[in-house]
Amino acid sequence: MTQVPKIAKELAKIVGRDRVFTNLEDRLCYAYDATFVEHLPDVVVKPASTEEVARILELAHREGIPIHPRGAGTGLSGGSVPLGGGIALVMTEMREIRKIHREDMLAVVAPGVVTAHLHRAAEACGLFYPPDPSSSEFCTIGGNVATGAGGPRGLKYGVTRDYVLGLEVVLADGSVIRTGGRTIKNATGYDLTRLFTGSEGTLGVITEIIVRLLPLPSTVRTLLAVFKDLAQAGEAVTAILTSGIVPRTLEIMDQISIALVEKFSPCGLPLDAAAVLLIETDGQKEQAEREAEEIHTLLTRQGAEVTLAKNPEEADKLWKARRAVSPAIAKIKPTKISEDVTVPRSQIPTMIRRLGEIRQKYNIDLVIFGHAGDGNLHPNIACDRRDQGEMRRVEQAIAEILNAALELGGTLSGEHGIGVLKAPFLLSDLGSGGWIAMKKIKQSLDPKGILNPGKIFIERSQELVKT
Amino acid sequence: MTQVPKIAKELAKIVGRDRVFTNLEDRLCYAYDATFVEHLPDVVVKPASTEEVARILELAHREGIPIHPRGAGTGLSGGSVPLGGGIALVMTEMREIRKIHREDMLAVVAPGVVTAHLHRAAEACGLFYPPDPSSSEFCTIGGNVATGAGGPRGLKYGVTRDYVLGLEVVLADGSVIRTGGRTIKNATGYDLTRLFTGSEGTLGVITEIIVRLLPLPSTVRTLLAVFKDLAQAGEAVTAILTSGIVPRTLEIMDQISIALVEKFSPCGLPLDAAAVLLIETDGQKEQAEREAEEIHTLLTRQGAEVTLAKNPEEADKLWKARRAVSPAIAKIKPTKISEDVTVPRSQIPTMIRRLGEIRQKYNIDLVIFGHAGDGNLHPNIACDRRDQGEMRRVEQAIAEILNAALELGGTLSGEHGIGVLKAPFLLSDLGSGGWIAMKKIKQSLDPKGILNPGKIFIERSQELVKT
Repeated sequence: MTQVPKIAKELAKIVGRDRVFTNLEDRLCYAYDATFVEHLPDVVVKPASTEEVARILELAHREGIPIHPRGAGTGLSGGSVPLGGGIALVMTEMREIRKIHREDMLAVVAPGVVTAHLHRAAEACGLFYPPDPSSSEFCTIGGNVATGAGGPRGLKYGVTRDYVLGLEVVLADGSVIRTGGRTIKNATGYDLTRLFTGSEGTLGVITEIIVRLLPLPSTVRTLLAVFKDLAQAGEAVTAILTSGIVPRTLEIMDQISIALVEKFSPCGLPLDAAAVLLIETDGQKEQAEREAEEIHTLLTRQGAEVTLAKNPEEADKLWKARRAVSPAIAKIKPTKISEDVTVPRSQIPTMIRRLGEIRQKYNIDLVIFGHAGDGNLHPNIACDRRDQGEMRRVEQAIAEILNAALELGGTLSGEHGIGVLKAPFLLSDLGSGGWIAMKKIKQSLDPKGILNPGKIFIERSQELVKT
Repeated sequence: MTQVPKIAKELAKIVGRDRVFTNLEDRLCYAYDATFVEHLPDVVVKPASTEEVARILELAHREGIPIHPRGAGTGLSGGSVPLGGGIALVMTEMREIRKIHREDMLAVVAPGVVTAHLHRAAEACGLFYPPDPSSSEFCTIGGNVATGAGGPRGLKYGVTRDYVLGLEVVLADGSVIRTGGRTIKNATGYDLTRLFTGSEGTLGVITEIIVRLLPLPSTVRTLLAVFKDLAQAGEAVTAILTSGIVPRTLEIMDQISIALVEKFSPCGLPLDAAAVLLIETDGQKEQAEREAEEIHTLLTRQGAEVTLAKNPEEADKLWKARRAVSPAIAKIKPTKISEDVTVPRSQIPTMIRRLGEIRQKYNIDLVIFGHAGDGNLHPNIACDRRDQGEMRRVEQAIAEILNAALELGGTLSGEHGIGVLKAPFLLSDLGSGGWIAMKKIKQSLDPKGILNPGKIFIERSQELVKT
């Protein structure tokens, strides 16, 4: 962007001088997300209303300036990094919970609302917003919608996209549209709500979100099951899921995760365990308890050592190990890459085996944990960006991980999105027809390509499908 | 279409002569759906494979021939009527249930599979496909996906769009793409699966569908509650929905529905009742029973007379009245128009009152029933197409019904789609920005406009938004 001072001045006319930033130190704060991808924006702007967003987009559209919407920057695929320079559009000033409607069981929120704030506001009304990305305490609802974020409770309750009823979106040219609405059902024209959900800021900027809420389950029960054998753990997952019970969470940690956790924040897990499952049931009291007991019996029969938490404090202890995995990985080496491959549930044991082979083949620090119940694993790699040799091995390993998922009928991403890091692999997942269809939609809504350029579709793929 | 014999010959080369029809009597069979909209296709073709569909679309694309995909023709908005003449593409030959995968809990089906056949195939494996349009015994899954069909169980389980994991779609130019896949979670690029779901054959032809299945609930309990006062019934709906219980169905019938049913197939409902609620709970035995009892108590407290079915036979009796409404309406007058307006749940009592006023104002036979739990009402109008004066009143009444829904924060359609009948109102629901965004997507994927022309977007709206 050549005319930064001129554009900054125009932006200041829209949002006020105190919400436009061009200093290096301010721009640095918005040059990253939770990956190692980095790029400086030319200018940072923090709008406070839909109208301001619309006027900023009009300006960017007129001048052909790349514009990168972002929430809290907790993304794990480089999706909000301002690769195209230009404007970083920081949505965190719009953080109002506009309405919690108890009778209609919905909430109307601005995109910058922190997810956990919505959780607590809904719970205060006896309602429940299930999607729970691990970064809930920091991430924003707008970012959750933009990436199609998930979380452990996805098994029973689905992910963000299953809760979005309606959106207000500012399109590339600054026009404001509304999709969906306040009704649970909607068959009026194309499902633009779901199209914008997960579009990673490449089709429009989300300025208001209507989410569906559920009755708050009164009781949650938590179990931890320790397996000496990985195949047994896989069979146990299938046994639970075909038993007629849908637990709210069904998390898995592999042997290396267990060893890491025990090294950095001991939870008393046996070091010879091959895998641990962490399971929650919920609902009204009797139901949650009966389901927990049934799962207890079933897991014991499958050869596991099972602990059923007697109270919330004990449950919290059982969660401690799962929560400690990510921080423990960060302690091994400075760079942490969090993958997000998803396979049909029956392929979880095979995928875990394949990951073990890849770990050995490339001699990398690969840790496996994730949402076993819905086939969504988060193989994490601890590495050091400065070590070129290691990074080459890591790159090859990631390509092999993604290919393994595709071979098993899976997909590149379950809840993190494509962003930059997975864009090179998109074509092999979608096939050229699907890739071209998505690109056509992108071009129809953003013909100048100003919205979050360099994401999802990258030039390399574009060359591959010259048609 | 001028060159019918030539095109028919080319079609016969693709699918064989016995699956191409040009006789008037054959074409008449595919000139209608379940509304009063009618238009003759020039030729009817019944493909048996994706490859045949692709070759037919290539031909239509090359020659610029309108092509209208259809399932069983049970649609209620004119969506599959071949308004553009050209080809009626009948998908009922592709009716294979290709796989029911018990561990992955999904089914892979061809679009012509009858919905009830999928229900039974899933149930035989202990699994459950919840969406249950009233036409389940006749309608096809392909049509359900194309319209975003719903059904009574939508309250607890959501509608068709909530179950579609992946699609195979033939695009306008004959290219074949796959969207989504066999994983429960998918955040890989744009959500094309949900975009094609509900696109009413205007973006592509669906040739394979992967749907998610659930564990089959072991028990269903059924209750019927009779109210002397409509407002009480509305309050009861809210009381149930905010109680923490999500019933599987929560159907409402108004006084006129009750009177009609009692006239044509008596079920013993009191004629002075203002409304009847039909409610089902389900799940594992204890849960379904406990929830049914809690609802019994709650409804009695709200002033209703409640019957709780003791066994499936009694439940079937309670359902009899609800099932008899549609046939009873058809007995009053020859033309039956089924509306599908949806409002935020809290607005159900207001919407029912507004409908009563509209009934009186236009002196029409308007009957109200539908899915109160999710705000989706089916005001049905019995009329006679040959009576021009009555039809004018009916048209005005429909416009007022749709406007009332929009005023209350609702939408034109909850589960029937826009088709032809609601197309004139689409602009007032979406606003010009939303309408234009949808039209741009349509144009990006079907630049020649051969796919199901005259549906969703009609010229009148187009003129209104000249930009």
